[in-house]
Amino acid sequence: MAKPVGAMKLSDNTLERICKVFGYLNFLSSKGVGFVSSLELAKGIGATAYNVRKDFSLLGVTGYTRRGYPAEVLKQQLGQRLNLTKRRKACIVGLGRLGSALLDYEKFAEDGFEIVAGFDSSINKIERLRTNIELYSIDQLTKVVKERSIDLGIIAVPAKAVQEVADKLVAAGIKGILNFSPVKILVAKNIVHLDMDFTSALRFVAAKFSLQK
Amino acid sequence: MAKPVGAMKLSDNTLERICKVFGYLNFLSSKGVGFVSSLELAKGIGATAYNVRKDFSLLGVTGYTRRGYPAEVLKQQLGQRLNLTKRRKACIVGLGRLGSALLDYEKFAEDGFEIVAGFDSSINKIERLRTNIELYSIDQLTKVVKERSIDLGIIAVPAKAVQEVADKLVAAGIKGILNFSPVKILVAKNIVHLDMDFTSALRFVAAKFSLQK
Repeated sequence: MAKPVGAMKLSDNTLERICKVFGYLNFLSSKGVGFVSSLELAKGIGATAYNVRKDFSLLGVTGYTRRGYPAEVLKQQLGQRLNLTKRRKACIVGLGRLGSALLDYEKFAEDGFEIVAGFDSSINKIERLRTNIELYSIDQLTKVVKERSIDLGIIAVPAKAVQEVADKLVAAGIKGILNFSPVKILVAKNIVHLDMDFTSALRFVAAKFSLQK
Repeated sequence: MAKPVGAMKLSDNTLERICKVFGYLNFLSSKGVGFVSSLELAKGIGATAYNVRKDFSLLGVTGYTRRGYPAEVLKQQLGQRLNLTKRRKACIVGLGRLGSALLDYEKFAEDGFEIVAGFDSSINKIERLRTNIELYSIDQLTKVVKERSIDLGIIAVPAKAVQEVADKLVAAGIKGILNFSPVKILVAKNIVHLDMDFTSALRFVAAKFSLQK
């Protein structure tokens, strides 16, 4: 059985590619694709086949056949090695347009992430929002995160509140943060965090087509 | 003067890193930082200093001093080489929670991206939304994109409508697409597109903290 990579240190680049490959395998599954080559995977995630193969060899991926990798088996191997098969609880802080859109983002659940709570400083907003997810005042964040053993915090508050919310999440025992606000957060080294930067993504698209000509 | 890289082919990895560096330089500017090393930049964007230096040498970046790169000069050089100094018009298709959140995403404008139009199939939604951006029925997409010379399309429609919207944008002459819907789009090779995958980002955070122990 494939085991989690454990002590082995993977670079962020490898981890990012493998996470994308995992998502791409979900996509192929939904299309009923049975086998896939490293080149197809690389194309699907915008990487080189060389890098994908190197990542697979670092992770000790096995099972390559002449028809390619069996997609389901590959997904299971990657999931086990990166500990992605475990269900994880997440919460969303900030329930404006973006935060409430994230409450409804159905793909999180498909992938084993369960949004179990939403927080906002406005009681009015909490009362008005229609959702099946339990909503709380931000004052209850520490208590709810601890009681429900929430691992992941998703931040979607306005820029000026971001750092305070990040600090609160960390103090409450959260292990990872996905930050959708337009400013970066500073947290202790052992807290994994990722800043989603929509502008950087748009910049990439603009630069790429601009250089194509 | 630094010139656009032009015919030179940059890998997506290089382009992605440089776009992130550009955003990080914006962030440093806002903090009043004058000089920055390649190591600091690499840390800021989650890459290695080796890769950042290699990217800079590919782009012919100059001006390194003992105190590091002068942040403003570096930003200008990168901007010119990747054609990022040009203002670009963008539109948003799909004005549900996520799409309407993107209408308000102030960082796009700071970075030279101007959201000039929003489209939705629901006239009711268009009439209710409060925004300074002009909103239209999706039936007018082709006309508006052509008349206003819009370069970039941002898609935030439900999964089942995504491919049709992508096809419409391409037919209208759009050059690049940023897709926020939870399904991938298929477009001709010369149309640059990027699928934003929130689940993949959350997966990265979860896998990384899970492997840390």
